Amino acid sequence: MDGALRFVSPAGWTEKKPCPEDVRSYLHKAVDFISDYYKSVESLPVLPDVKPGYLQRELQAAPPASSASFDVAMKELRAAVVPGMTHWASPNFFAFFPSTNSAAAIAGDLIASAMNTVGFTWQANPAATEMEVLALDWLALLQRLPASFMNRTAAGRGTGGGVILGTTSEAMLGVSGLPRLAVYAADQTHSTFFKACRLAGFDPANIRSIPTGAETDYALDPAKLLEIMRADVDAVLVPTYICATVGTTSSNAVDPVGAIADVAAVFNAWVHVDAAYAGSACICPEFRHHLAGGERVDSISMSPHKWLMTCLDCTCLWVRDTHRLTGSLETNPEYLKNDASESGTVTDLKDMQVGVGRRFRGLKLWMVMRTYGAAKLQEHIRSDVAMAKMFEDNVRSDDRFEVVVPRNFALVCFRIKPRHGMTEEVADEANRELMERLNRTGKAYLAHTVVGGKFVLRFAVGSSLQEERHVRSAWELIKKTTAEIMEEIVVE
Amino acid sequence: MDGALRFVSPAGWTEKKPCPEDVRSYLHKAVDFISDYYKSVESLPVLPDVKPGYLQRELQAAPPASSASFDVAMKELRAAVVPGMTHWASPNFFAFFPSTNSAAAIAGDLIASAMNTVGFTWQANPAATEMEVLALDWLALLQRLPASFMNRTAAGRGTGGGVILGTTSEAMLGVSGLPRLAVYAADQTHSTFFKACRLAGFDPANIRSIPTGAETDYALDPAKLLEIMRADVDAVLVPTYICATVGTTSSNAVDPVGAIADVAAVFNAWVHVDAAYAGSACICPEFRHHLAGGERVDSISMSPHKWLMTCLDCTCLWVRDTHRLTGSLETNPEYLKNDASESGTVTDLKDMQVGVGRRFRGLKLWMVMRTYGAAKLQEHIRSDVAMAKMFEDNVRSDDRFEVVVPRNFALVCFRIKPRHGMTEEVADEANRELMERLNRTGKAYLAHTVVGGKFVLRFAVGSSLQEERHVRSAWELIKKTTAEIMEEIVVE
Repeated sequence: MDGALRFVSPAGWTEKKPCPEDVRSYLHKAVDFISDYYKSVESLPVLPDVKPGYLQRELQAAPPASSASFDVAMKELRAAVVPGMTHWASPNFFAFFPSTNSAAAIAGDLIASAMNTVGFTWQANPAATEMEVLALDWLALLQRLPASFMNRTAAGRGTGGGVILGTTSEAMLGVSGLPRLAVYAADQTHSTFFKACRLAGFDPANIRSIPTGAETDYALDPAKLLEIMRADVDAVLVPTYICATVGTTSSNAVDPVGAIADVAAVFNAWVHVDAAYAGSACICPEFRHHLAGGERVDSISMSPHKWLMTCLDCTCLWVRDTHRLTGSLETNPEYLKNDASESGTVTDLKDMQVGVGRRFRGLKLWMVMRTYGAAKLQEHIRSDVAMAKMFEDNVRSDDRFEVVVPRNFALVCFRIKPRHGMTEEVADEANRELMERLNRTGKAYLAHTVVGGKFVLRFAVGSSLQEERHVRSAWELIKKTTAEIMEEIVVE
Repeated sequence: MDGALRFVSPAGWTEKKPCPEDVRSYLHKAVDFISDYYKSVESLPVLPDVKPGYLQRELQAAPPASSASFDVAMKELRAAVVPGMTHWASPNFFAFFPSTNSAAAIAGDLIASAMNTVGFTWQANPAATEMEVLALDWLALLQRLPASFMNRTAAGRGTGGGVILGTTSEAMLGVSGLPRLAVYAADQTHSTFFKACRLAGFDPANIRSIPTGAETDYALDPAKLLEIMRADVDAVLVPTYICATVGTTSSNAVDPVGAIADVAAVFNAWVHVDAAYAGSACICPEFRHHLAGGERVDSISMSPHKWLMTCLDCTCLWVRDTHRLTGSLETNPEYLKNDASESGTVTDLKDMQVGVGRRFRGLKLWMVMRTYGAAKLQEHIRSDVAMAKMFEDNVRSDDRFEVVVPRNFALVCFRIKPRHGMTEEVADEANRELMERLNRTGKAYLAHTVVGGKFVLRFAVGSSLQEERHVRSAWELIKKTTAEIMEEIVVE
């Protein structure tokens, strides 16, 4: 494409370096694009109709030899990339957990990209390091986490603290790197936990995936956990690490944090709470009870990029004793040594993560809290939950459907119910067909899960541009598509 | 601060959601800030004069209850955050490796933040997945990597391919997760290698840090490697993994890739090449020889955020046989299953990384190559190298100094030479004093390393706004400060 443009010199290139005027003009073009994109994304098919390898046919196979106007990249973005996107920003996106965003977060992330600072030690960027510490303390306050997880408390600097990472798996890896031997989680726990444990060198034979069932709404049963840990002790293993999930990805099950902490205490095992998604809801008093017992756990992680109006990537990890983390992750090469680090008065965030390099992620998180404040953030959570409840009520009022597990947050797990002698197999097939037809319309995108052996549709509310009317339209589409499928089943 | 503003409603908040007009207005404010920042950053102290805990005194200790105008966050950013920043964007930044940037990269990153897409599977975002594949192939072509590392070659789809990660440690962790037992690297290898190996569960006793010395310019000696690997075999260990570095962080030493691959072949060990920094230079034919032998290694990583005009974070990992990586990193939870993945015709990038979530990092990398083209990117590398050479010539022409190791790229390792009976201890002290005084001026920021037991200053050229005049000024400042220090030493 645009071979003719390949020899046009980019505007504003002064000598060998791009100049600030370049930055301004490129960014204005990007802002115009974003503004148009947000206005039009609702009308684009949320799941694109493209075949594997499509982009290769649209774009040049090799990098251009010469420079081009930035307009060329923008034109190809519009013409070739956008039509192949799955639009996570679409208000018709109900799959997985929607990625959450806001104007303040995007602006904060933009400034971080432009400053392009690498705050691996305090000296390498005092402001970025301290802003990350501050943002984590603010968020801990919003969630009313125990003071033991905070960098600064009313009583001064404690042993607690945290770090902002890219993904939950990094949080798990950092923590799971600490102890050895047997580790535990419910079978509903995110797959990334089991991957992190394997990567951290745990013997796969000692990684326990504890079965859950409908009787606990797919949450971890502390009695079962205790029993399995005792059996391991009898087999001369050392139970060392338990991951409890508040809001599983599959169905939003909530493991009982306090009861798990009590079991862990018997064995002196480390308890990590993965609240990647539902942690955001805990800024509202009415959801805070899901973290009850948090004062007895060792670490907690949650991802504001999942539900707190902050764009990717932003995962917060707090630990009660930062020394247990830095003890395992600290490095001290000569070229990073400096007086501030050696004084012991500063946190070097590289020692709380796997890598050394790091973006200035604290800025966007701080900007979100600074701009929207607790009240607006709570309103955002409650609005999503209210829309999900409306959808749930619709499902419950239509006897063709069932809600498979109780709704805890803004995810509704539902399915077409087997009726009139329909077998479970046919019901599974009908539900899969429903999902696929919905997704093919381009008017909605839903993902599925399997709960208790049944194929279940996941309706996740919370895409940042979503309003009640989008949820209503999706429900109408679901009813209509279900009627068509039922008709066909009867005919067959 | 600004308590009075806490109850102002943010402009443009429609009902419960931020609207596109909000995004436009916030981003315009951010762009204005960035533009001003780039124009003024040269005059700001590159290393700030702040004490630990400073930011806490400047900003509110708790998150605001209510929302505020975005201007409040921007005002606090200017007033409290900027004065505490280490300015990596300053043209007077010569520490570590400078972070590299460009207008196209920032714009691409901004669009990625706004689209906020999570392309963990092909279906979850075909365009983002395919653009990442394309950008990696483009970059492989620019570096003339062997075709075996490419997703698509003239002959069709091969077994090679790659993934864009956040940092080099993620690349090392992914790869080191594959094999077990004894692992090897030169003592100059980045500390993150040893950390990744520990996290990957290697027995610390079997992680070999092979001593290097001046006789190989601190590069790994293949004969020594062979000897140590043979001794391990005699001790019934299995040598499985070698990390060769092209351009070490400490002094830019280059391990001989081909000779190391030959040694590895004897033991059938995996060879990873870490070219985080110097890989960018290999887009120029005159530097490509540093990767000679690359066709015999198993994996290569390099970070465009280090030297290819792409903002953080962006690390590229290529492997010759993607199945060996996905075999260890694949997960397949029910909620991520889809027809495209099951068809086997697509790459799901989640299976080539530790986590599941991922930013649309391919976009900025593609935009950089699409806009600047091979010629401008090569010009950028050559311009940095020319400035470093000019600095090196200056150092060599002044007999108070010595260049400690030969310059390979844009990093000059130099020191005040001990003369007139000055002991090595005094020389080390003088060099440390030189660095600290330079850094205190706010007019330059240099880091140090220790090479061959000596304290050495690292002068790293390449900050994106840097021009020849900044290098000249830094040299004048170094000469003047050295003269002062020498004077004092004589007086004492």
